[in-house]
Amino acid sequence: MSEIDDRLKALGLELPAPRPPAGAYTPVVIDGNIAYTSGTVAIENNEPASVGRLGAELTVEDGKQSARGACLRSLGTLAVAIGGLDRVERVLKVTGYVRAVPEFTDLPPVLDGASELLIQVFGEAGRSARTTVGVAALPRGASVELDMVVRLRGS
Amino acid sequence: MSEIDDRLKALGLELPAPRPPAGAYTPVVIDGNIAYTSGTVAIENNEPASVGRLGAELTVEDGKQSARGACLRSLGTLAVAIGGLDRVERVLKVTGYVRAVPEFTDLPPVLDGASELLIQVFGEAGRSARTTVGVAALPRGASVELDMVVRLRGS
Amino acid sequence: MSEIDDRLKALGLELPAPRPPAGAYTPVVIDGNIAYTSGTVAIENNEPASVGRLGAELTVEDGKQSARGACLRSLGTLAVAIGGLDRVERVLKVTGYVRAVPEFTDLPPVLDGASELLIQVFGEAGRSARTTVGVAALPRGASVELDMVVRLRGS
Repeated sequence: MSEIDDRLKALGLELPAPRPPAGAYTPVVIDGNIAYTSGTVAIENNEPASVGRLGAELTVEDGKQSARGACLRSLGTLAVAIGGLDRVERVLKVTGYVRAVPEFTDLPPVLDGASELLIQVFGEAGRSARTTVGVAALPRGASVELDMVVRLRGS
Repeated sequence: MSEIDDRLKALGLELPAPRPPAGAYTPVVIDGNIAYTSGTVAIENNEPASVGRLGAELTVEDGKQSARGACLRSLGTLAVAIGGLDRVERVLKVTGYVRAVPEFTDLPPVLDGASELLIQVFGEAGRSARTTVGVAALPRGASVELDMVVRLRGS
Repeated sequence: MSEIDDRLKALGLELPAPRPPAGAYTPVVIDGNIAYTSGTVAIENNEPASVGRLGAELTVEDGKQSARGACLRSLGTLAVAIGGLDRVERVLKVTGYVRAVPEFTDLPPVLDGASELLIQVFGEAGRSARTTVGVAALPRGASVELDMVVRLRGS
Protein backbone atom coordinates (compact mmCIF):
# COMPACT_ATOMS: atom_id res chain seq x y z
CA MET A 1 0.00 0.00 0.00
CA SER A 2 1.27 3.46 -0.80
CA GLU A 3 2.23 6.13 1.69
CA ILE A 4 -0.45 8.51 0.44
CA ASP A 5 -3.10 5.78 0.51
CA ASP A 6 -2.15 5.12 4.14
CA ARG A 7 -2.53 8.80 4.93
CA LEU A 8 -5.89 9.04 3.19
CA LYS A 9 -7.09 6.03 5.15
CA ALA A 10 -5.88 7.54 8.44
CA LEU A 11 -7.80 10.71 7.54
CA GLY A 12 -10.92 8.66 6.80
CA LEU A 13 -10.92 9.89 3.20
CA GLU A 14 -11.81 8.04 0.05
CA LEU A 15 -10.87 9.40 -3.36
CA PRO A 16 -13.96 9.89 -5.51
CA ALA A 17 -13.91 8.02 -8.83
CA PRO A 18 -13.31 10.25 -11.88
CA ARG A 19 -16.37 11.47 -13.73
CA PRO A 20 -16.62 12.23 -17.42
CA PRO A 21 -15.79 15.87 -18.16
CA ALA A 22 -18.70 18.29 -18.61
CA GLY A 23 -17.65 19.16 -22.17
CA ALA A 24 -15.06 18.88 -24.94
CA TYR A 25 -12.06 18.84 -22.64
CA THR A 26 -10.09 16.38 -20.53
CA PRO A 27 -9.91 16.36 -16.72
CA VAL A 28 -6.09 16.27 -16.55
CA VAL A 29 -3.34 16.99 -19.06
CA ILE A 30 0.12 15.66 -18.27
CA ASP A 31 2.98 17.54 -19.92
CA GLY A 32 6.29 15.96 -19.01
CA ASN A 33 6.27 16.09 -15.21
CA ILE A 34 3.65 18.80 -14.93
CA ALA A 35 -0.07 18.00 -14.55
CA TYR A 36 -2.74 20.60 -15.28
CA THR A 37 -6.13 19.78 -13.76
CA SER A 38 -9.42 21.09 -15.10
CA GLY A 39 -11.71 23.25 -13.00
CA THR A 40 -13.52 20.97 -10.54
CA VAL A 41 -16.47 21.37 -8.17
CA ALA A 42 -17.58 19.10 -5.32
CA ILE A 43 -20.16 16.54 -6.50
CA GLU A 44 -22.57 14.35 -4.55
CA ASN A 45 -25.13 12.04 -6.18
CA ASN A 46 -24.38 13.56 -9.59
CA GLU A 47 -25.20 17.06 -8.38
CA PRO A 48 -22.95 19.84 -7.07
CA ALA A 49 -22.53 19.13 -3.37
CA SER A 50 -22.84 22.82 -2.53
CA VAL A 51 -24.93 25.28 -4.54
CA GLY A 52 -25.22 28.96 -3.76
CA ARG A 53 -23.29 32.13 -3.05
CA LEU A 54 -20.98 33.00 -0.22
CA GLY A 55 -22.35 36.03 1.57
CA ALA A 56 -25.93 35.04 0.74
CA GLU A 57 -27.19 31.45 1.09
CA LEU A 58 -23.86 30.02 2.29
CA THR A 59 -21.55 30.57 5.25
CA VAL A 60 -17.74 30.52 5.22
CA GLU A 61 -17.90 27.05 6.75
CA ASP A 62 -20.17 25.87 3.91
CA GLY A 63 -17.69 27.28 1.43
CA LYS A 64 -14.78 25.63 3.16
CA GLN A 65 -16.48 22.22 2.89
CA SER A 66 -17.21 22.93 -0.75
CA ALA A 67 -13.55 23.77 -1.43
CA ARG A 68 -12.46 20.64 0.40
CA GLY A 69 -14.89 18.53 -1.65
CA ALA A 70 -13.72 20.08 -4.91
CA CYS A 71 -10.11 19.40 -3.96
CA LEU A 72 -10.79 15.80 -2.96
CA ARG A 73 -12.56 15.16 -6.24
CA SER A 74 -9.69 16.74 -8.12
CA LEU A 75 -7.26 14.45 -6.30
CA GLY A 76 -9.39 11.41 -7.21
CA THR A 77 -9.23 12.38 -10.87
CA LEU A 78 -5.53 13.18 -10.71
CA ALA A 79 -4.72 9.87 -8.99
CA VAL A 80 -6.19 7.87 -11.87
CA ALA A 81 -4.54 10.08 -14.51
CA ILE A 82 -1.02 9.80 -13.05
CA GLY A 83 -1.18 6.28 -11.62
CA GLY A 84 -1.47 7.14 -7.93
CA LEU A 85 -0.88 10.21 -5.78
CA ASP A 86 2.55 9.02 -4.64
CA ARG A 87 3.75 10.49 -7.94
CA VAL A 88 2.91 14.02 -6.72
CA GLU A 89 6.14 15.82 -5.90
CA ARG A 90 4.69 19.26 -5.19
CA VAL A 91 1.43 21.12 -5.67
CA LEU A 92 2.67 24.23 -7.43
CA LYS A 93 -0.43 26.37 -7.79
CA VAL A 94 -4.09 26.30 -6.81
CA THR A 95 -6.54 28.78 -8.29
CA GLY A 96 -9.83 28.93 -6.43
CA TYR A 97 -13.00 30.55 -7.68
CA VAL A 98 -15.66 31.27 -5.06
CA ARG A 99 -19.20 32.14 -6.08
CA ALA A 100 -19.90 35.20 -3.96
CA VAL A 101 -21.98 38.33 -3.67
CA PRO A 102 -20.03 41.58 -4.26
CA GLU A 103 -20.01 42.44 -0.54
CA PHE A 104 -18.32 39.18 0.46
CA THR A 105 -14.68 39.65 1.47
CA ASP A 106 -13.71 36.61 3.55
CA LEU A 107 -12.39 34.56 0.62
CA PRO A 108 -9.09 33.04 1.83
CA PRO A 109 -10.66 30.96 4.66
CA VAL A 110 -12.97 29.38 2.07
CA LEU A 111 -10.06 28.11 -0.02
CA ASP A 112 -8.27 26.93 3.10
CA GLY A 113 -10.73 24.03 2.96
CA ALA A 114 -8.79 22.87 -0.10
CA SER A 115 -5.30 23.92 0.98
CA GLU A 116 -5.59 22.28 4.39
CA LEU A 117 -6.60 19.03 2.70
CA LEU A 118 -3.58 19.23 0.39
CA ILE A 119 -1.28 19.72 3.38
CA GLN A 120 -2.93 16.84 5.25
CA VAL A 121 -2.40 14.57 2.26
CA PHE A 122 1.02 15.67 0.96
CA GLY A 123 2.57 17.45 3.93
CA GLU A 124 4.50 20.62 3.07
CA ALA A 125 4.58 19.47 -0.59
CA GLY A 126 0.87 20.32 -0.58
CA ARG A 127 1.46 23.93 0.47
CA SER A 128 1.07 25.64 -2.91
CA ALA A 129 1.01 29.13 -4.29
CA ARG A 130 -2.65 30.15 -4.45
CA THR A 131 -4.97 32.70 -5.95
CA THR A 132 -8.50 33.15 -4.63
CA VAL A 133 -11.14 35.28 -6.33
CA GLY A 134 -14.89 35.75 -5.98
CA VAL A 135 -16.83 35.17 -9.19
CA ALA A 136 -20.35 35.84 -10.37
CA ALA A 137 -21.25 32.37 -11.62
CA LEU A 138 -19.93 28.81 -11.63
CA PRO A 139 -20.97 25.65 -13.51
CA ARG A 140 -24.32 24.32 -12.24
CA GLY A 141 -24.39 26.95 -9.52
CA ALA A 142 -21.63 25.34 -7.50
CA SER A 143 -20.14 27.47 -4.74
CA VAL A 144 -16.44 26.70 -5.27
CA GLU A 145 -14.40 25.62 -8.29
CA LEU A 146 -10.65 25.07 -8.32
CA ASP A 147 -7.83 23.94 -10.56
CA MET A 148 -4.22 22.99 -9.90
CA VAL A 149 -0.78 22.83 -11.47
CA VAL A 150 1.16 19.90 -10.00
CA ARG A 151 4.79 18.77 -10.31
CA LEU A 152 5.11 14.99 -10.66
CA ARG A 153 8.07 12.81 -9.80
CA GLY A 154 9.99 11.52 -12.82
CA SER A 155 8.22 8.46 -14.22
CA MET B 1 0.97 23.82 -47.52
CA SER B 2 0.82 22.72 -43.93
CA GLU B 3 -1.42 20.07 -42.47
CA ILE B 4 -3.13 22.54 -40.16
CA ASP B 5 -3.63 25.05 -42.98
CA ASP B 6 -5.29 22.28 -45.00
CA ARG B 7 -7.58 21.51 -42.09
CA LEU B 8 -8.49 25.15 -41.54
CA LYS B 9 -9.29 25.46 -45.25
CA ALA B 10 -11.46 22.33 -45.14
CA LEU B 11 -13.30 23.84 -42.17
CA GLY B 12 -13.79 27.09 -44.10
CA LEU B 13 -11.83 28.98 -41.45
CA GLU B 14 -9.42 31.85 -41.89
CA LEU B 15 -7.09 32.88 -39.09
CA PRO B 16 -7.63 36.52 -38.11
CA ALA B 17 -4.55 38.72 -38.35
CA PRO B 18 -3.01 39.65 -34.98
CA ARG B 19 -4.07 42.96 -33.48
CA PRO B 20 -1.98 45.19 -31.25
CA PRO B 21 -2.49 44.33 -27.57
CA ALA B 22 -4.91 46.50 -25.56
CA GLY B 23 -2.20 47.62 -23.14
CA ALA B 24 1.36 47.22 -21.89
CA TYR B 25 1.60 43.50 -22.53
CA THR B 26 2.33 41.13 -25.38
CA PRO B 27 -0.19 38.76 -27.01
CA VAL B 28 2.00 35.65 -26.68
CA VAL B 29 5.06 34.80 -24.61
CA ILE B 30 7.12 31.81 -25.69
CA ASP B 31 9.17 30.20 -22.95
CA GLY B 32 11.19 27.29 -24.32
CA ASN B 33 8.51 25.07 -25.83
CA ILE B 34 5.62 26.54 -23.87
CA ALA B 35 3.49 29.39 -25.21
CA TYR B 36 1.32 31.52 -22.91
CA THR B 37 -1.41 33.45 -24.72
CA SER B 38 -2.97 36.63 -23.40
CA GLY B 39 -6.68 36.84 -22.66
CA THR B 40 -8.49 37.25 -25.97
CA VAL B 41 -12.05 38.12 -27.01
CA ALA B 42 -13.72 37.72 -30.40
CA ILE B 43 -13.39 40.88 -32.50
CA GLU B 44 -15.25 42.02 -35.61
CA ASN B 45 -14.68 45.39 -37.31
CA ASN B 46 -12.53 46.53 -34.39
CA GLU B 47 -15.33 45.91 -31.87
CA PRO B 48 -16.02 42.89 -29.66
CA ALA B 49 -18.04 40.51 -31.84
CA SER B 50 -20.32 39.65 -28.92
CA VAL B 51 -21.19 42.06 -26.13
CA GLY B 52 -23.44 41.23 -23.19
CA ARG B 53 -24.09 38.75 -20.42
CA LEU B 54 -25.04 35.12 -20.55
CA GLY B 55 -28.33 34.66 -18.79
CA ALA B 56 -29.47 38.18 -19.77
CA GLU B 57 -28.98 39.56 -23.29
CA LEU B 58 -27.22 36.45 -24.68
CA THR B 59 -28.12 32.80 -25.16
CA VAL B 60 -25.83 29.81 -24.70
CA GLU B 61 -25.54 29.59 -28.49
CA ASP B 62 -24.44 33.25 -28.62
CA GLY B 63 -21.84 32.51 -25.97
CA LYS B 64 -20.61 29.47 -27.83
CA GLN B 65 -20.03 31.53 -30.97
CA SER B 66 -18.25 34.13 -28.87
CA ALA B 67 -15.96 31.49 -27.37
CA ARG B 68 -15.26 30.07 -30.83
CA GLY B 69 -14.43 33.53 -32.14
CA ALA B 70 -12.13 34.26 -29.20
CA CYS B 71 -10.36 30.96 -29.76
CA LEU B 72 -9.96 31.51 -33.51
CA ARG B 73 -8.48 34.93 -32.90
CA SER B 74 -6.14 33.50 -30.31
CA LEU B 75 -5.00 30.89 -32.84
CA GLY B 76 -4.38 33.60 -35.44
CA THR B 77 -2.17 35.46 -32.99
CA LEU B 78 -0.40 32.30 -31.87
CA ALA B 79 0.26 31.20 -35.47
CA VAL B 80 2.20 34.38 -36.22
CA ALA B 81 4.07 34.24 -32.90
CA ILE B 82 5.28 30.65 -33.33
CA GLY B 83 5.65 30.53 -37.13
CA GLY B 84 2.59 28.44 -37.96
CA LEU B 85 0.19 26.22 -36.05
CA ASP B 86 1.93 23.03 -37.16
CA ARG B 87 4.30 23.75 -34.28
CA VAL B 88 1.50 23.11 -31.74
CA GLU B 89 2.11 19.77 -30.07
CA ARG B 90 -0.66 19.96 -27.47
CA VAL B 91 -3.03 22.51 -26.02
CA LEU B 92 -2.37 22.03 -22.31
CA LYS B 93 -4.85 24.35 -20.64
CA VAL B 94 -7.68 26.69 -21.60
CA THR B 95 -9.13 29.09 -19.04
CA GLY B 96 -12.44 30.57 -20.12
CA TYR B 97 -14.14 33.57 -18.54
CA VAL B 98 -17.82 34.02 -19.36
CA ARG B 99 -19.58 37.29 -18.60
CA ALA B 100 -22.73 36.10 -16.86
CA VAL B 101 -25.45 37.06 -14.43
CA PRO B 102 -25.23 35.32 -11.04
CA GLU B 103 -28.13 32.99 -11.85
CA PHE B 104 -26.49 31.59 -14.99
CA THR B 105 -25.21 28.04 -14.53
CA ASP B 106 -24.81 26.55 -18.02
CA LEU B 107 -21.16 27.56 -18.44
CA PRO B 108 -19.39 24.49 -19.89
CA PRO B 109 -21.40 24.43 -23.16
CA VAL B 110 -20.34 28.03 -23.77
CA LEU B 111 -16.65 27.16 -23.65
CA ASP B 112 -17.25 24.11 -25.81
CA GLY B 113 -17.41 26.63 -28.65
CA ALA B 114 -13.67 27.08 -28.14
CA SER B 115 -12.78 23.50 -27.21
CA GLU B 116 -14.62 22.01 -30.19
CA LEU B 117 -12.73 24.34 -32.50
CA LEU B 118 -9.41 23.27 -30.94
CA ILE B 119 -10.30 19.61 -31.50
CA GLN B 120 -11.38 20.29 -35.09
CA VAL B 121 -8.06 22.00 -35.78
CA PHE B 122 -5.60 19.86 -33.78
CA GLY B 123 -7.47 16.58 -33.26
CA GLU B 124 -7.03 15.04 -29.81
CA ALA B 125 -3.99 17.31 -29.26
CA GLY B 126 -6.54 20.11 -28.98
CA ARG B 127 -8.42 18.42 -26.12
CA SER B 128 -7.02 20.42 -23.20
CA ALA B 129 -7.56 20.69 -19.50
CA ARG B 130 -10.04 23.52 -18.99
CA THR B 131 -11.44 25.83 -16.35
CA THR B 132 -14.63 27.78 -16.96
CA VAL B 133 -15.92 30.51 -14.66
CA GLY B 134 -18.57 33.20 -14.87
CA VAL B 135 -17.28 36.71 -14.26
CA ALA B 136 -18.83 40.10 -13.59
CA ALA B 137 -17.07 42.12 -16.28
CA LEU B 138 -14.81 41.67 -19.29
CA PRO B 139 -12.82 44.12 -21.45
CA ARG B 140 -15.12 46.25 -23.62
CA GLY B 141 -18.14 44.31 -22.43
CA ALA B 142 -17.22 41.17 -24.40
CA SER B 143 -19.13 38.02 -23.48
CA VAL B 144 -16.24 35.52 -23.46
CA GLU B 145 -12.50 35.85 -22.89
CA LEU B 146 -10.02 32.98 -22.89
CA ASP B 147 -6.34 32.25 -22.59
CA MET B 148 -4.25 29.16 -23.26
CA VAL B 149 -1.06 27.37 -22.29
CA VAL B 150 0.29 25.45 -25.29
CA ARG B 151 3.13 22.94 -25.71
CA LEU B 152 5.13 23.52 -28.91
CA ARG B 153 7.20 21.03 -30.83
CA GLY B 154 10.95 21.48 -30.48
CA SER B 155 12.12 24.19 -32.85
CA MET C 1 24.43 46.87 -5.74
CA SER C 2 22.33 45.06 -8.29
CA GLU C 3 21.10 46.45 -11.60
CA ILE C 4 17.47 46.07 -10.59
CA ASP C 5 18.06 47.68 -7.19
CA ASP C 6 19.61 50.64 -9.03
CA ARG C 7 16.57 50.88 -11.25
CA LEU C 8 14.15 50.68 -8.33
CA LYS C 9 16.08 53.43 -6.58
CA ALA C 10 16.02 55.62 -9.69
CA LEU C 11 12.25 55.08 -9.84
CA GLY C 12 11.94 56.05 -6.18
CA LEU C 13 10.50 52.63 -5.37
CA GLU C 14 11.03 50.49 -2.32
CA LEU C 15 10.07 46.84 -2.30
CA PRO C 16 7.56 46.09 0.47
CA ALA C 17 8.65 43.41 2.92
CA PRO C 18 6.86 40.07 2.52
CA ARG C 19 3.81 39.48 4.70
CA PRO C 20 2.61 36.16 6.02
CA PRO C 21 0.12 34.54 3.63
CA ALA C 22 -3.60 34.93 4.40
CA GLY C 23 -4.12 31.17 4.73
CA ALA C 24 -2.71 27.67 4.27
CA TYR C 25 -0.59 28.48 1.24
CA THR C 26 2.80 29.97 0.42
CA PRO C 27 3.41 33.31 -1.32
CA VAL C 28 5.77 31.90 -3.97
CA VAL C 29 6.51 28.41 -5.22
CA ILE C 30 9.72 27.90 -7.18
CA ASP C 31 9.72 24.93 -9.53
CA GLY C 32 13.06 24.63 -11.30
CA ASN C 33 13.44 28.01 -12.97
CA ILE C 34 9.74 28.90 -12.87
CA ALA C 35 8.21 30.91 -10.01
CA TYR C 36 4.48 30.92 -9.36
CA THR C 37 3.31 33.82 -7.20
CA SER C 38 0.14 33.77 -5.11
CA GLY C 39 -2.66 36.24 -5.71
CA THR C 40 -1.62 39.55 -4.17
CA VAL C 41 -3.37 42.84 -3.40
CA ALA C 42 -1.87 46.22 -2.51
CA ILE C 43 -1.54 46.65 1.27
CA GLU C 44 -0.96 49.76 3.38
CA ASN C 45 -0.87 49.75 7.18
CA ASN C 46 -2.07 46.13 7.23
CA GLU C 47 -5.19 46.98 5.25
CA PRO C 48 -5.88 46.74 1.52
CA ALA C 49 -4.58 50.01 0.06
CA SER C 50 -7.59 50.27 -2.24
CA VAL C 51 -11.05 48.92 -1.39
CA GLY C 52 -14.05 49.13 -3.68
CA ARG C 53 -15.33 48.45 -7.16
CA LEU C 54 -14.29 49.88 -10.47
CA GLY C 55 -17.29 51.55 -12.07
CA ALA C 56 -18.73 52.43 -8.65
CA GLU C 57 -16.58 53.88 -5.84
CA LEU C 58 -13.31 53.81 -7.80
CA THR C 59 -11.99 55.43 -10.99
CA VAL C 60 -9.71 53.83 -13.58
CA GLU C 61 -6.83 55.84 -12.10
CA ASP C 62 -7.61 54.43 -8.63
CA GLY C 63 -7.58 50.94 -10.10
CA LYS C 64 -4.31 51.57 -11.89
CA GLN C 65 -2.66 52.60 -8.61
CA SER C 66 -4.11 49.52 -6.96
CA ALA C 67 -2.70 47.26 -9.68
CA ARG C 68 0.68 48.97 -9.38
CA GLY C 69 0.65 48.50 -5.62
CA ALA C 70 -0.30 44.82 -5.92
CA CYS C 71 2.49 44.31 -8.42
CA LEU C 72 5.07 46.08 -6.27
CA ARG C 73 4.12 43.99 -3.27
CA SER C 74 4.33 40.85 -5.39
CA LEU C 75 7.83 41.86 -6.49
CA GLY C 76 8.86 42.43 -2.87
CA THR C 77 7.71 38.93 -1.97
CA LEU C 78 9.31 37.41 -5.06
CA ALA C 79 12.63 39.17 -4.42
CA VAL C 80 12.98 37.54 -1.01
CA ALA C 81 11.87 34.13 -2.31
CA ILE C 82 14.36 34.02 -5.18
CA GLY C 83 17.25 35.96 -3.63
CA GLY C 84 16.88 39.23 -5.52
CA LEU C 85 15.04 40.40 -8.64
CA ASP C 86 18.19 40.18 -10.80
CA ARG C 87 17.30 36.51 -11.06
CA VAL C 88 14.15 37.35 -13.08
CA GLU C 89 14.75 36.44 -16.71
CA ARG C 90 11.25 37.10 -18.02
CA VAL C 91 7.77 37.71 -16.65
CA LEU C 92 5.80 35.10 -18.58
CA LYS C 93 2.23 35.72 -17.54
CA VAL C 94 0.22 38.11 -15.39
CA THR C 95 -3.39 37.38 -14.52
CA GLY C 96 -5.23 40.39 -13.14
CA TYR C 97 -8.56 40.32 -11.35
CA VAL C 98 -10.37 43.63 -11.06
CA ARG C 99 -13.29 44.05 -8.69
CA ALA C 100 -15.87 45.74 -10.90
CA VAL C 101 -19.57 46.33 -11.43
CA PRO C 102 -21.06 44.45 -14.41
CA GLU C 103 -21.24 47.62 -16.53
CA PHE C 104 -17.53 48.37 -16.20
CA THR C 105 -15.61 47.69 -19.42
CA ASP C 106 -12.36 49.65 -19.21
CA LEU C 107 -10.32 46.83 -17.67
CA PRO C 108 -7.01 46.80 -19.59
CA PRO C 109 -5.92 50.32 -18.49
CA VAL C 110 -6.36 49.22 -14.87
CA LEU C 111 -3.89 46.36 -15.24
CA ASP C 112 -1.49 48.62 -17.11
CA GLY C 113 -0.67 49.98 -13.66
CA ALA C 114 1.01 46.63 -13.01
CA SER C 115 2.39 45.99 -16.50
CA GLU C 116 3.96 49.43 -16.80
CA LEU C 117 5.72 48.88 -13.47
CA LEU C 118 7.06 45.52 -14.68
CA ILE C 119 8.43 47.17 -17.83
CA GLN C 120 9.97 50.01 -15.81
CA VAL C 121 11.71 47.48 -13.58
CA PHE C 122 12.68 44.72 -16.04
CA GLY C 123 12.57 46.46 -19.41
CA GLU C 124 11.09 44.34 -22.22
CA ALA C 125 11.59 41.23 -20.04
CA GLY C 126 8.70 42.63 -17.98
CA ARG C 127 6.33 42.73 -20.95
CA SER C 128 4.31 39.58 -20.23
CA ALA C 129 1.32 37.80 -21.64
CA ARG C 130 -1.67 39.01 -19.63
CA THR C 131 -5.27 38.18 -18.88
CA THR C 132 -7.56 40.75 -17.27
CA VAL C 133 -11.04 39.97 -15.99
CA GLY C 134 -13.59 41.74 -13.81
CA VAL C 135 -14.69 39.79 -10.76
CA ALA C 136 -17.47 40.07 -8.21
CA ALA C 137 -15.41 39.89 -5.03
CA LEU C 138 -11.80 39.92 -3.86
CA PRO C 139 -10.14 39.20 -0.50
CA ARG C 140 -10.89 41.96 2.05
CA GLY C 141 -12.70 43.97 -0.59
CA ALA C 142 -9.50 44.91 -2.43
CA SER C 143 -9.97 46.41 -5.88
CA VAL C 144 -7.24 44.52 -7.76
CA GLU C 145 -5.55 41.16 -7.26
CA LEU C 146 -2.89 39.68 -9.51
CA ASP C 147 -0.60 36.70 -9.83
CA MET C 148 2.37 35.95 -12.04
CA VAL C 149 4.35 33.16 -13.65
CA VAL C 150 8.01 34.15 -13.90
CA ARG C 151 11.04 32.57 -15.62
CA LEU C 152 14.19 32.75 -13.48
CA ARG C 153 17.79 32.64 -14.61
CA GLY C 154 19.59 29.38 -13.90
CA SER C 155 20.80 29.34 -10.31
